[in-house]
Order: sequence, then C-alpha cells, then structure tokens
Amino acid sequence: MKKYLMSPGPTPVPEDILLTMAEPMVHHRTPQFIEKVGEAMEGLKYVFQTDHDVLIFTSSGTGAMEGAVSNVLNPNDKALIITNGKFAERWGEIAESFQAKPIYLNVEWGEVCDPQEIAEILQENPDIKAVYTQLTETSAGVVMPIKEMGDIIKKTDALFVVDAISGLGGQKFYMDKWNVDICVAGSQKGLMLPPGHAYAAVSEKAWKMVEKCKQPHYYFDWLTYKKKLVGDHKDPFTGSVLHVKGLLKFLEKIKSDGIENRFKRYKVLAEATQNAAKALGLDLFAKEPCDVETAIKIPDTVDGKKLVKLMRDKYGFTIAGGQKHVKGKIIRIAHMGYIEAFDVISVIASLEIVLKELGWDFKIGSGIAAAQKVIIKKYKF
Amino acid sequence: MKKYLMSPGPTPVPEDILLTMAEPMVHHRTPQFIEKVGEAMEGLKYVFQTDHDVLIFTSSGTGAMEGAVSNVLNPNDKALIITNGKFAERWGEIAESFQAKPIYLNVEWGEVCDPQEIAEILQENPDIKAVYTQLTETSAGVVMPIKEMGDIIKKTDALFVVDAISGLGGQKFYMDKWNVDICVAGSQKGLMLPPGHAYAAVSEKAWKMVEKCKQPHYYFDWLTYKKKLVGDHKDPFTGSVLHVKGLLKFLEKIKSDGIENRFKRYKVLAEATQNAAKALGLDLFAKEPCDVETAIKIPDTVDGKKLVKLMRDKYGFTIAGGQKHVKGKIIRIAHMGYIEAFDVISVIASLEIVLKELGWDFKIGSGIAAAQKVIIKKYKF
Repeated sequence: MKKYLMSPGPTPVPEDILLTMAEPMVHHRTPQFIEKVGEAMEGLKYVFQTDHDVLIFTSSGTGAMEGAVSNVLNPNDKALIITNGKFAERWGEIAESFQAKPIYLNVEWGEVCDPQEIAEILQENPDIKAVYTQLTETSAGVVMPIKEMGDIIKKTDALFVVDAISGLGGQKFYMDKWNVDICVAGSQKGLMLPPGHAYAAVSEKAWKMVEKCKQPHYYFDWLTYKKKLVGDHKDPFTGSVLHVKGLLKFLEKIKSDGIENRFKRYKVLAEATQNAAKALGLDLFAKEPCDVETAIKIPDTVDGKKLVKLMRDKYGFTIAGGQKHVKGKIIRIAHMGYIEAFDVISVIASLEIVLKELGWDFKIGSGIAAAQKVIIKKYKF
Repeated sequence: MKKYLMSPGPTPVPEDILLTMAEPMVHHRTPQFIEKVGEAMEGLKYVFQTDHDVLIFTSSGTGAMEGAVSNVLNPNDKALIITNGKFAERWGEIAESFQAKPIYLNVEWGEVCDPQEIAEILQENPDIKAVYTQLTETSAGVVMPIKEMGDIIKKTDALFVVDAISGLGGQKFYMDKWNVDICVAGSQKGLMLPPGHAYAAVSEKAWKMVEKCKQPHYYFDWLTYKKKLVGDHKDPFTGSVLHVKGLLKFLEKIKSDGIENRFKRYKVLAEATQNAAKALGLDLFAKEPCDVETAIKIPDTVDGKKLVKLMRDKYGFTIAGGQKHVKGKIIRIAHMGYIEAFDVISVIASLEIVLKELGWDFKIGSGIAAAQKVIIKKYKF
C-alpha cells in the first residue's frame, strides 16, 4: 500500500534530498566539508530571517531547547513560560531540570495568550531573565502572536526565546524584525529533512547572557559552538554529515521558491484544510490556527483513536492524534515541508472515507470540494 | 577522482545501508517503527556482548560520553581518568564541566597504563565513583587492557566506564565478560553508519549509581531513556529514524558475519598495515597497537601535514593526521567498519607514492608486499 506521511514531524523528505544524503560518506574535517558547513550556517540565516549567528547541533530539536535554557538561566533565575500545549510545557520541564524558577502563564491548549498579560508580568517581575514560547504549538495547532510579544519584551532586559521547531520555513516568521533573541528549530518539519539536526539562532543580547551562564554542560555548551562552529565552521564534535548535505539541498529549494511564497503556500493549504473540516461538520481545535498543521476536534460519537489507526493501517495515511488530555479528541493533519496541494486533497479524501466508516453523517466529497475551491482560487502551482 | 575514506571516523558506509536510509521517511511513533527500535536495541546487545540495557541517542558519540559522566558523578565526586590521548582527555573535560573531581593517571600518548597502578589508586581512594578509559584511543592508535582493568575494578564499588566509540564492532571487546559497567559507542566507526547516533550500554551496578545522581540534565537524562526507550521502545524525543533503519541493516551484516570473524578480520588488517609501515622503514606510534587503526610515526625529514594533504587532494585518500602535540608527526590509517583487504592495499600504495614524492627513501612496493604476505596467510575472504 502506498504510504502518505502527513504528520507534524517527521514530515516527508523530498526524494532528491534523500538521495543526496545517500551519497558516499565524506570526512567532516576536510576543507571541502568545512566550507559546506559554513554555507549551511549562512543559508539558515535566510530561513530564520536573521543576521545573527545560527548554530547547528546533531540532536533532536529538544537538544536545542535544552541549550536555550541551560546556556541562559542560572539556578534560581526567573523565567516566564507561556504554556498552551505539550511543547510549551516542555520549556517548563527543562527549566525545572536546571533549577530555574519558571513563572507560568497558563493558557488553555489551543488558545493564545494576551501579550498585555506578558507586559504586566514582566513589569511585576523585572528580574525575569527570559520569556519562552512557541511559534506554532503543534500539540494544539495554534500560532502565537510573536510579533506583538516581541514588541513588549524588547523593551525589557529579558530575552525572547521562541521554539520554532514545528513552524520554521512554513509559518510566517521574521526573527530580527520581530525582536526574537533565541530561536530554535529542528530538521524534520518545515525544513524537509529527516530528524537528527537541531538549530539555534542567537542574538547579541542573548550571547551576553550566555556568557554569564554557569550551568554545567558540555555537548550543548553554546560558547564552544560559537568559538568552533561560528568561528571556524567546524562542528566541535563529529556531527551529522548527512544532515549538512541534505540541509544544503533544502536551502537551494527554499531560496529558489522564495520564503514569502512558501509562507503563502502553507497558508493556502491551511485554509483549504480548515474549510474542508468545517464542510464535514467538524470544528477546529485552535482559536488561532497555524499554517503548518490543522488540529480538528473529533465529535464525541466518533472514536478518534480508531480514526487515526484506520487512516494509517487501512489507507496508508499517517496523521497525528491528540496528545495528553486531548488524546482521542482531536486529529492533526500537517501541511508543512514537502506537502503540496494534492497531498492535502488526498488526506481529506481518506479522512472522509474513514469518517463514513465510523458513522459520521455528511455528504461524501464535500470536504474535498471545499478544499478545492480554496486551492483553485489561491494556490500557486 | 575516486575517493577513499580511510580515516578513523567517519568511516565509509556500505551502499546498501545508505540506500536503506534513503527510503521514504516514516513516522517514529507507529507500532511498526517502535518494533524496529526494539529490534535495534536488542541487536546492539550482540555488538556490545552484553545482556544489559543498551540506550540509543541522537547525537555524536560525545553526547553518550557526557551522559556517562552527568548521570553518574555528582559535583565533587571523585573519578579516576586514565589519559593517554585526546579522547581520554575529553573524559576529564566533561567531568570538570560537571564539577566532579577527576584524579588523572597520566600516561604518554600511545602508551597504556599498568592496571596495577589503578588497583593502588583505588585502594588509596576508596571513594572513587568511577574509572573512565577508552577501549581504543584513536588519537594514538592504542588499545587498553580492558579485561585486566575490569578484573581489578569489579572488586571495588567504582564503576568501570569504557568509551568504545572508535573500537566497538572491530576491536575485541566483551562488555559483560570483562566486567564493564558503562560502555559508550558511536555510529560512524565500526558500526558502518554515518555519524548521528550514539549508544550506551548500562549495567545494573551502573543503574544504581545513575538513580542517585542529581546533576541537572534533560536531553541526556538516562532515567528518562530507561523508562521510555528500554521500557516502551520509544525514543523520548524525535530521534534519527534514518539511523535506526541503517543500524538494523548493519546488525544483519554483523550477525551474518559473526562478531568473532570481524574481530579476526580487523586484526589481520592491522597486522598487514603495521608490517607495511615497518617495511617502509617507519615506526608505529602505539606501544600496544589497536586493531581498528594504525598510527605511524612520520620521520622528521618528511612533512607529515603535507603527506596527509597530498594523499587526500592528489590521490583521493582521506586518512587522519595527528592531533594536538603530535600534529604533523603521525598519520593514522583506519581499518575498521566497511574497510576490507584491498582498501588497505590501496591506501598503502598511495602512501608509498606520496612518501617517494616527499623524498623518503625505500624500495617502492615493499610496503604492499609486506601487507600482501599477511593477507595471503591470514585474511579470510
């Protein structure tokens, strides 16, 4: 059976990237490869929309998240963490692991915070060292008001740290223009690569705080990366050669498409998926849906876990279900990375077929028709 | 120009492993993939020659080294570190990063320690929590007397921690039989994979110490891996799907060859390379040469850095030079992983050509002839 990977990470990897990665192994310390590392770091600046340094780590995205805590917060340092989903909660887990003192601004999953509340908390707690949030919180399919948050945080001494692991390259984002100090990302989402690489872009304001941090670490010691990777384009360790090669191929693609066109593409795919869901009589989970995935509420009469399983095992579509307390209650369909218009059409078709099997009442084809209308009107092939 | 990768990591990756890794991306949380992770962990036990748990990390080998310190030593804990090369020194750097108190048993690069000295230090310092060493120290091409060290350390409360990053799968090693408590390894050496995966095998004696460790960490928190990866075969994060697939393919190969046959193969290749060097009038650097690479002293009259550069840029052979204070003074030729008899012949041929160019006096072909004699007599094709 043909397989379709439509989950919010790992996302499908273009065939030419996979084949580039399958080329014979090269040594990581040759001048030729060191030059490639430099090109990759430079190219990533375009993806982050930044002039700051971009670091590359061989790890999952969580490794870069850990670094954005353990290189910034000393024990007992205050940090503001906005929690509106599973990955937002991970910021809190990491901060607590390093004995920092998080202040939580708890928001319901799928909702966004009011930036004004952040301003108030920062005013009441001028000793907050950093504010941690997500660009897109994939567990809930929501996008955060990064620009508005940046406008507030830039006026303070606090760093603005954004986890863009699931959004970068797909969801509109401008690190420098939006006053973000640290942005972390992973390879396996909008960057169309397999999991294994993590990235962090670091502002001058952030480097100053990193220099003062005294947490114990070695593998994720960002000052070592600054010296060796930024300075000499040498990974301090033996990093993933394959991912550097794949990354260069991805960078060619995104530069040739233009990042603004990518932002538009995923926005249209999001609207198509959202309209399809509504046409099938389903509600969206997120109050502010992001462009890189769509989280859809599953009605109580339908078994959400079975739906995900049937789509995968009977029809070949891997989408994601809900995590933690929304397990079985929502589904999440990704439209990021190497996912284009007809992939979205296909996943909606399979969703319709499975919804029928599970007894949900709607007119077959109505979801697809709603998506098609958006695609005809707005998608740029 | 055809390229030959003969460096001690990354090593060449078999074409079928690369192509397996280039197959379409799959999701890391499907039952099918989780089953593969379980198989990979089980299969690794054979490579480590252990019945203990084997953990898999998405990182360079150094990530596993860090974990073997930060999950074991609390601040101010004493540890004995045997230093006889660059990677041995890394154990010390990591231990100091985590505020442990290393006691160093300094041995010249290329030499090995006397296990009796370890016994004495442990007797004088019964509060030493762990002894750290390398199976093979690639910066010097030396193999350590792991069995003898294990016999001594097992009688104490200290853990025996071995970095087998450059040796595992090639250099004779039996984790359980030799009483090793923690053994770390990386993917890009004897395991014939690209860099990106690290492994750690952990004994029951070690787990007891890990449970008591209070260092701050998140990404390399081994107890999380024990619960999720050992318990449910789920990587706590989004690990490298590609490396798991490649690893399964490698495990098929090593099981089909038989690990004892692999040990023998690399031993013969080492002897062939050693004899070739001697036939060319060159000396070996290591007192106890390992089987996975050969470190050769370069005479003062020959420019060692130029030799490495010429071999790479003019003839296509990437070997390694010396690091730190032996830079330019030694060369290191790997014979581990996907390197077989005729690769060794070829690299010696190119070495001879370059040595002639650099004015070294010897009879052309004499190195190859010496290697051939060993291969004819002992190599099993």
